[in-house]
Amino acid sequence: MPLKKDVVRSHRDEIAGVVASNEMIARQAVKLIEIVYEIMPAVFTVADAMAENAPLIHPKNESNHLITNTYSHGDLEQGEAESDVVVEVSCKLPYVNHASMETCVIVAQFDHHENLTLWSTTQIPFLLQKDLGQALGMSPKDIRIIQPTIGGAFGRELDIYPYHPIAAVMAKKAQTAVRLCFSREEEFRAGPQRQPVEVSIRAGAKNNGDLTFRDVSMTLDVGAYVSWGSTTPMVMMETTASFYRVPHVRFKADCVYTNNLITGAMRGYGNPQSSFFVESAMDMLAEKLGMDPIQFRIHNSNQPNTTTEQGLKITSCGLEDCLKALAQRAEKKLEQPEKTHLKRGRGVGGTLNVGGGARIYRSDGCGATVKVDDFGHVSLITGSTEIGQGSETVLAQMVAEILGVEVGDVRVINSDTDVKMWDVGVHASRTTFIAGNAACLAAKEALSQIFETASEMLGPPPDLLKAENGQIIAPDGNSVSLSKVVRSRHFRSDGKMVHGQAFYDPPTELVDKESYHGNISPAYGFGMQMADVEVDTETGQVKVLKLVCAKDIGLAINPMAVEGQIEGGAQMGLGYALSEEVVVKEGKVMNPNFVDYRLFTSADMPEIENILIESNDPEGPFGAKGVGEMGSSCVAAAVTNAIYDAVGVRLTQAPMTPERVLAALDALEKATD
Amino acid sequence: MPLKKDVVRSHRDEIAGVVASNEMIARQAVKLIEIVYEIMPAVFTVADAMAENAPLIHPKNESNHLITNTYSHGDLEQGEAESDVVVEVSCKLPYVNHASMETCVIVAQFDHHENLTLWSTTQIPFLLQKDLGQALGMSPKDIRIIQPTIGGAFGRELDIYPYHPIAAVMAKKAQTAVRLCFSREEEFRAGPQRQPVEVSIRAGAKNNGDLTFRDVSMTLDVGAYVSWGSTTPMVMMETTASFYRVPHVRFKADCVYTNNLITGAMRGYGNPQSSFFVESAMDMLAEKLGMDPIQFRIHNSNQPNTTTEQGLKITSCGLEDCLKALAQRAEKKLEQPEKTHLKRGRGVGGTLNVGGGARIYRSDGCGATVKVDDFGHVSLITGSTEIGQGSETVLAQMVAEILGVEVGDVRVINSDTDVKMWDVGVHASRTTFIAGNAACLAAKEALSQIFETASEMLGPPPDLLKAENGQIIAPDGNSVSLSKVVRSRHFRSDGKMVHGQAFYDPPTELVDKESYHGNISPAYGFGMQMADVEVDTETGQVKVLKLVCAKDIGLAINPMAVEGQIEGGAQMGLGYALSEEVVVKEGKVMNPNFVDYRLFTSADMPEIENILIESNDPEGPFGAKGVGEMGSSCVAAAVTNAIYDAVGVRLTQAPMTPERVLAALDALEKATD
Repeated sequence: MPLKKDVVRSHRDEIAGVVASNEMIARQAVKLIEIVYEIMPAVFTVADAMAENAPLIHPKNESNHLITNTYSHGDLEQGEAESDVVVEVSCKLPYVNHASMETCVIVAQFDHHENLTLWSTTQIPFLLQKDLGQALGMSPKDIRIIQPTIGGAFGRELDIYPYHPIAAVMAKKAQTAVRLCFSREEEFRAGPQRQPVEVSIRAGAKNNGDLTFRDVSMTLDVGAYVSWGSTTPMVMMETTASFYRVPHVRFKADCVYTNNLITGAMRGYGNPQSSFFVESAMDMLAEKLGMDPIQFRIHNSNQPNTTTEQGLKITSCGLEDCLKALAQRAEKKLEQPEKTHLKRGRGVGGTLNVGGGARIYRSDGCGATVKVDDFGHVSLITGSTEIGQGSETVLAQMVAEILGVEVGDVRVINSDTDVKMWDVGVHASRTTFIAGNAACLAAKEALSQIFETASEMLGPPPDLLKAENGQIIAPDGNSVSLSKVVRSRHFRSDGKMVHGQAFYDPPTELVDKESYHGNISPAYGFGMQMADVEVDTETGQVKVLKLVCAKDIGLAINPMAVEGQIEGGAQMGLGYALSEEVVVKEGKVMNPNFVDYRLFTSADMPEIENILIESNDPEGPFGAKGVGEMGSSCVAAAVTNAIYDAVGVRLTQAPMTPERVLAALDALEKATD
Repeated sequence: MPLKKDVVRSHRDEIAGVVASNEMIARQAVKLIEIVYEIMPAVFTVADAMAENAPLIHPKNESNHLITNTYSHGDLEQGEAESDVVVEVSCKLPYVNHASMETCVIVAQFDHHENLTLWSTTQIPFLLQKDLGQALGMSPKDIRIIQPTIGGAFGRELDIYPYHPIAAVMAKKAQTAVRLCFSREEEFRAGPQRQPVEVSIRAGAKNNGDLTFRDVSMTLDVGAYVSWGSTTPMVMMETTASFYRVPHVRFKADCVYTNNLITGAMRGYGNPQSSFFVESAMDMLAEKLGMDPIQFRIHNSNQPNTTTEQGLKITSCGLEDCLKALAQRAEKKLEQPEKTHLKRGRGVGGTLNVGGGARIYRSDGCGATVKVDDFGHVSLITGSTEIGQGSETVLAQMVAEILGVEVGDVRVINSDTDVKMWDVGVHASRTTFIAGNAACLAAKEALSQIFETASEMLGPPPDLLKAENGQIIAPDGNSVSLSKVVRSRHFRSDGKMVHGQAFYDPPTELVDKESYHGNISPAYGFGMQMADVEVDTETGQVKVLKLVCAKDIGLAINPMAVEGQIEGGAQMGLGYALSEEVVVKEGKVMNPNFVDYRLFTSADMPEIENILIESNDPEGPFGAKGVGEMGSSCVAAAVTNAIYDAVGVRLTQAPMTPERVLAALDALEKATD
């Protein structure tokens, strides 16, 4: 129930709504609501939730255990037997918040036909249309979703949440447009967070450097209600099973209800977590084998045109090139500072990320239309969603390239479910790839219409023409402007406009619900980061001096935007590594603001060097793959490995705050005493 | 120049602009502008403007005479010679105002790429885009026009006017969005009006009732600047040449500059004027011949599948049916009231109107796309423009009919040049016909995709399927819901959406610029109205008791909307006949408000009987033709003929106010004394 009736299960739970003409009146009205709570037993840790006779969060279930995801390939016993070295480590990763500059906002309004229009910061307009219909008991066809300019989301808006139907019901009752906007505090308290995880990994290798096995088990606290927070194990499973070549793998994840915060999707969607524990284990193995950590990874690198045991069809693959680029940068050794309490170290961490969407729904497609007007102005109507990632620019560039016009001549229209064709939403680094392919197909249909008419005007057949600089050019050099071709097609008897349409759904498959095998994405992106850190052994403070980011992005449609994605990801990853944690005590958020929740600011940021590896994906538009998420995924892994390199302690809990570093140094000292 | 620099030519002229954050500040700022006028000689009548040595409105021209439109067919001398009766009458018709409930409004805003977005009450978004580019010296491709809900326009917004570039320049200078909104007074003073005309008609007929000739000459005061006001003679020419069958016709219209108001397009676009003088002459001929006026018209009626001398291809034609319907109603004679100073009379008047657009531009086309979503919700993106005429409803009905869904399941999207395909604009009663055909073509393409998939699901080939009540039905009665078909097409490997696109340009031609021959419209609508009036011979007051409106509208897609158009037109026509006149003295409007400018209100309206004649046009969508204008065109003609029938005086000047009626009665009395 959007408004909980009898039982509230977490501090975030909605129990009543107030509509007023301004916020002050609403706040006063809220104070007039009297609520009498009967305190019931609650559980705030996975262990307590799983204890015998634990109070049930949802009494209709038999236990608080929600689901176990298991996966395996090969034979773990054989893998262990073949191993010359085995390592094991347990990690603990925190709640973090998306911290989008814009909070969740929704405006709901019914028209006099009882049709609902929702202006929303959602990332999934068409799925929200469907889910909201179900929640409200109305047909989705009577719901229209409009997405104004959205100030970031990072996965926060990948689901329907109670405030969506609440705003709609309020609008219906109040018979007017109702706006519901989260405060920053509500964003922390009531919105979904990246879920905390406790994970153990055992991994082995042979003396020749071959990986032998991985065995991963974890528990996830999904909070009091289920959202995408319970499905991120699938991504951690993917890294465990398919990142580097591992013949024997076992994976088990238990998702457990507690009375804590709700958890959902967040940039990387499991990858920052899995990169942390997999790459921690990789460095530990390299050390035991006495191998250089980068060369060890190159030895086990994924390769192009291979299929992993899990069924991932890796076509383009620049992982080895990423690693080699880091190896080249690593030739210049770190200099240690003169002050002896400052220790420098270097570490790497990598990620395997879906590079063109992930089929989490029956269609992973996107529709597009391309219209060229009499003046050569182009409109691309795309199903895709812009949340600040820059997809409008990239899509416009692709269409402009195909039609031979300036990027500024292309308008991208993407904000209205009644105007645009279907798209599953913005997630899984899919927009450049999926919406890009759709836009290219529609632009090519438009171009074929343009060439058809230009051929009449210039003589040569359509397939000999090319479009450049706003001109259609024949092999003999004769040309006619694009706009003149459009007008010639338009202003004639039985005239036609130039208008192309396309729907692109990638050649992927829903993964099998039992075995979790299947090729979920049409392309995979790879990224490696190398962090140089300086640890203050007196204060425990870790300073990142430099971050080298080598990323296989297929092809950089817009290099500046790609670097922006990687650097923005680095900022988020550095926060995950060193400073960000939603502190929860007995289900309550203790730091729901940007003073106490410490984001990396521009002043905190290290020098970043970007290395773009262009592996030219065969299915990607112009060879491109997605890059939206991988920038944030492997920073914490690189940093923890760098800290180990600097001071010899392995941090297993993020964020790696001065207190935790100092505690680890103390423990090391005691152990070596 | 939008802002006149050295010379102002009329009281409406723009000389400076002020932008302020509110209207009060703007008004105060305007008062601070000091202007010193040097009074120059001016001309306020056509006669003065054409006098020798008249001051030139535009000194670069040789005279104030703008243009003469001439047309002829047959041999006028032969026509005169063959005539048994000849009549002649001169008429004088006034300035009238569109009186839309919403005044002209524009919001202009430049983005940081110097692209201009204009929110406008325009009727011609794509032509405005082009014209505004020219006016501002920028490429039209950098201009986007958005049309919010528009509260009427009636032809007022068929052109670019100075306030469009003025608002844009202000927005650029002020670096913010600028809103410019006409007051009601400005609407009268500065907007375009229906142009006044002085016209003489001579017409003849044989004793058997055959029309022999018409000879029409007129002068039009177009004001100080040229807009569409100078082209309405083409429509009056069309009535003169092609309404009823006339073998010999001559037509001459002189358009003359004066220092009066600017004139433009208005509903009917010449037809209320030409109906007045042509139908006055028809009644005068019938009287001279001793024939019943309706039977005389039936005798000369246009017929289906004929081509007029001017080249109009009349396909469907319900004129004779309209006349017969009136004849049937006329069987019930008018009863005279007991009071002897009240005299009742009956008169008819008719109109020939383009019924599916008029090719005034190189393309008279319209684009459309139809998208069906997973839930069976349909979006029609149409190039057409809704100004309150109800086209959204009619277009939705057509698409719903083709796809077999509810009207409420169709959303019409029509407000953004960047989203919709091209359309020439809303005028010439074209939207139902042209945008309707485009919408039907796009819907049929969508339906063919639906049938393709449904055929796989149901078995029978696509051409045996039908779409009804949201179901796709096979001949054996098996069926599947439309939304299920869409989902089946979507949610499969290489899935596709249902999306149709079309551009419809009617099979018409630009009329020859010299001879004015050519088939301007793909269909022609015909209308006849019969007015019963009561004249108070003591006060001169004319009361319309009843108006019977028989209209050939091809097919009524939405009968209530058709009746609404006819009744709204009747309201406008009654004002033209009896009460509306923009009074201009020395170029100044004396009654720029709704107290002194007398519209017919609902309390003033007579009983109206609508008779819809469905002639089933072969080219029209579902057989429909346009009906937007004809309701207003022939009311004044019917009323003047009815007044003559009541009291024996022929009013030749509109509006037929009590003063004018009394004066005519006085003159009759003096003449018969």
